[in-house]
Amino acid sequence: MSRFFSEKYSALVPYVPGEQPQNRKYNKLNTNESPFPPSPYALKLGREAAGDCQLYSDPDCRQLRAVASEKLGVGENEIVFVNGSDEILNFAFMAFCDKDHPAIFPNISYGFYPVFAQINNVPYREIPLREDLTVNVDDYIGVEGNVFIANPNAPTGIALPLSDIERIVAGNLDRVVVVDEAYVDFGAESAVCLVKKYDNLLVTQTFSKSRSLAGARLGFGIGNEKLIADINTIRFSTNPYNINKVTEKMGIGALCDEDYFRANCETIIKTREYTAEKLKSLGFEMTDSKANFLFAKHKKAKGGDIYVEVKERGVLVRHFGKPLIDDYLRITIGSREQMDALIAELEKIL
Amino acid sequence: MSRFFSEKYSALVPYVPGEQPQNRKYNKLNTNESPFPPSPYALKLGREAAGDCQLYSDPDCRQLRAVASEKLGVGENEIVFVNGSDEILNFAFMAFCDKDHPAIFPNISYGFYPVFAQINNVPYREIPLREDLTVNVDDYIGVEGNVFIANPNAPTGIALPLSDIERIVAGNLDRVVVVDEAYVDFGAESAVCLVKKYDNLLVTQTFSKSRSLAGARLGFGIGNEKLIADINTIRFSTNPYNINKVTEKMGIGALCDEDYFRANCETIIKTREYTAEKLKSLGFEMTDSKANFLFAKHKKAKGGDIYVEVKERGVLVRHFGKPLIDDYLRITIGSREQMDALIAELEKIL
Repeated sequence: MSRFFSEKYSALVPYVPGEQPQNRKYNKLNTNESPFPPSPYALKLGREAAGDCQLYSDPDCRQLRAVASEKLGVGENEIVFVNGSDEILNFAFMAFCDKDHPAIFPNISYGFYPVFAQINNVPYREIPLREDLTVNVDDYIGVEGNVFIANPNAPTGIALPLSDIERIVAGNLDRVVVVDEAYVDFGAESAVCLVKKYDNLLVTQTFSKSRSLAGARLGFGIGNEKLIADINTIRFSTNPYNINKVTEKMGIGALCDEDYFRANCETIIKTREYTAEKLKSLGFEMTDSKANFLFAKHKKAKGGDIYVEVKERGVLVRHFGKPLIDDYLRITIGSREQMDALIAELEKIL
Repeated sequence: MSRFFSEKYSALVPYVPGEQPQNRKYNKLNTNESPFPPSPYALKLGREAAGDCQLYSDPDCRQLRAVASEKLGVGENEIVFVNGSDEILNFAFMAFCDKDHPAIFPNISYGFYPVFAQINNVPYREIPLREDLTVNVDDYIGVEGNVFIANPNAPTGIALPLSDIERIVAGNLDRVVVVDEAYVDFGAESAVCLVKKYDNLLVTQTFSKSRSLAGARLGFGIGNEKLIADINTIRFSTNPYNINKVTEKMGIGALCDEDYFRANCETIIKTREYTAEKLKSLGFEMTDSKANFLFAKHKKAKGGDIYVEVKERGVLVRHFGKPLIDDYLRITIGSREQMDALIAELEKIL
């Protein structure tokens, strides 16, 4: 820290993303990336756009919003694109939370929520999950602040049915409810269909997982036009050209290649069920994950120990080392070959 | 504005970027883009990287920082890459300014500075330029807050010599001085060489102008390791994966293609001098611009009128419509052909 760093951030502890090692080629199952490359049309449009990069991208993302509007069935003013969904989550903390409007989220959820609260000087309260790591919906009705709820939750992968999400939204009509659907395409129900009914609902999604564009950085938010306008006020007051030209075009391509997207999601779901069976036979217990990862603990071996041992053998998984989930590993669903390679190493270790 | 928007932003007026019309093909001289495409190596690396976009980019930008360290002669921990230099300017307001540490900048400068101050709830003071639109360096010695100074200044294009920049940095040793060098490559002196001498200096630059990558969104900051660490604390608390994979690689390519970069800068400088002569003969007066634009007013015709008339004829320039500079137009230096087309239209109008 320099002698100039503002005191308001003296206690700030930044988010720590999953490892991205450069020194060795790992079987990388630690950051929930897709095992499939970007769609052919995404790649074609992106490579073409690279040649025009001397010109600014469109800060209004008009072409991308027009395609998204058609493909996702929402109005062009009900959607905003961002540089990865982390950006819109931060914008939502900025726009809707303050000292009088705290943030409420589960105590086990996306680890960035408390950091967003801290950097924006927003008070927050974490609601404990049940012992089985599920969300108790009654805890989120009529709360004192804006709700941030990941569905499926991270890193448990457990999804709430749409009816429960609607109960939370309807139970806080004077608060904003942000439903973070980073993993929704792998078997959960999206709340996008509720946006026209509730003006307090903001749904966020990402192209990083199901659309194979983690490295392109593209996320979006869907909500009532006025909520989206507020997010744009923040965006145009910090970084209006947040989406680059290549990414805008890759996003268009990915939205158009719908069959590719659906087939990949189905394959990942099948591979998840396959992997879950294999892990069970090795003595693991798991949550009912509807995401592109499994959240697993072994009956005997410690999570931290397995993490270290498989890493030495060239497989990266994620271990959070936090209270309540210290025994667990979060294992990304890669290709069948990647999962078989993990299982082969686990068989040797256990 | 929704009923949920935080009151702290109720008076916030977002930045308005230059027009990016999609409906008509203009001779676009309004947002200081380069007339040259990205360098061949930038394009090659970027297109290759697009194929790997299912994997996250490196939040530490290790490869890019290594190349930049070598090419720019700074330590790898003295540089941080950002999603366009707007992002690091905002981060600097966040990191170093607060109620007790206001921001100080010229009253005519980059129009985003007051917006960054407002969104971060930072008090600010604007110091008037002299009547000839130059910065009076004495006004910036021993001031009460952190200094933000664009060199060359925007939109005047007027540059301070390095000795004057050093006087400002040395004259505020207990304040951060941010030198915004978006346009430095077109004839001004960079302050990067002062970074090892002063721990209170942060220099920001961009790949948007001289390196033909406006649409890829890449900027950077160079400063003392501790200042850079503070910027990274903010970055990792808001959006750690702010640089996408394609842009990281295009940045490497652009840094390596040094001859292309230098030749393009020289061509733009020559075209600027050529255009200035032509405009003078048409009755324009200009500041002594060291940027890739001219800041010009006509002896008789109004800036706003010329803006409208050339736009109707298919040429976009920038008119700010603000007090003190309402008579001026900011004209990007494009290719010789683009400038000749502008001059031909002006000859018809005037």
